[in-house]
Amino acid sequence: MIILGIDPGTAIMGYGLIEQKGNHLSALAYSCWRTPAHTPLAERLLMLYEQIVPFLREHPPDHMAVEELFFNKNTTTALAVGHARGVVLLTGAQQGIPVYEYTPLQIKQAVVGYGRAEKKQVQQMVKGLLRLDEIPKPDDTADALAVAICHAHSYALNRRMEEFR
Amino acid sequence: MIILGIDPGTAIMGYGLIEQKGNHLSALAYSCWRTPAHTPLAERLLMLYEQIVPFLREHPPDHMAVEELFFNKNTTTALAVGHARGVVLLTGAQQGIPVYEYTPLQIKQAVVGYGRAEKKQVQQMVKGLLRLDEIPKPDDTADALAVAICHAHSYALNRRMEEFR
Repeated sequence: MIILGIDPGTAIMGYGLIEQKGNHLSALAYSCWRTPAHTPLAERLLMLYEQIVPFLREHPPDHMAVEELFFNKNTTTALAVGHARGVVLLTGAQQGIPVYEYTPLQIKQAVVGYGRAEKKQVQQMVKGLLRLDEIPKPDDTADALAVAICHAHSYALNRRMEEFR
Repeated sequence: MIILGIDPGTAIMGYGLIEQKGNHLSALAYSCWRTPAHTPLAERLLMLYEQIVPFLREHPPDHMAVEELFFNKNTTTALAVGHARGVVLLTGAQQGIPVYEYTPLQIKQAVVGYGRAEKKQVQQMVKGLLRLDEIPKPDDTADALAVAICHAHSYALNRRMEEFR
């Protein structure tokens, strides 16, 4: 199964495409999509859309996994990230790709096995699980790979649990 | 000039298309786009996109005006509305329509002349300025017409002020 993980943002959007074969995970492509500063929000969203859609067509994933965010403090940030997530979810639905959402807690739990893990621990696990030479940069890319790994683990686990029902 | 006002939301998105000729405003079309409850967010965003895009093609506005929201309390709501706004701003940019954003304060100021006006006062002014028989329902539709009127007034004022510079 091929999974595209996304860490949404309007200025920088991390993505990580991984392949799951049995218990084996490998990274196929990972980087981030960027938009220039001082650009109207509507233009930025269009720039993201025009980067995501060709990527999805060229590397169609079986599933998409997007980080679900909870903000305790900054509603302005929540609104901004919401715009970018809206565009990502739309592109998934347009291409008929099932979209799954995971909270930071679920991601840490699935990747490190501990919901209160530090960012650095998550990144080390991403590097280890995918057998990468170094931690992917920037953080948005590492986070996108983490949500893809989270989906790979959660989805496999859910399928196995269903077999027991 | 033809202006499309939008009050964004994922369950219900109000829209109001108005025409400005000199000081005269008239309503061309106003209603709302809805999505069914208990539907995955990505599907809802696609449903909205597929209602907005044909509307923009059939009734191309010169400008779009979208309510800009500030939340003091509920970040979950901010994130949800952000998704819907993201899709709206994207459609505007895709069709090459300039998109303007106004805060609730600016809208009340422009429509009623008083930034702390009650919702009911705004709705009465919308009805009066557009010579409608009754206040448009639901509130989302009235709010969308209000942001369109706000843009008509603000844009005309800014142009007149530029002539004096």
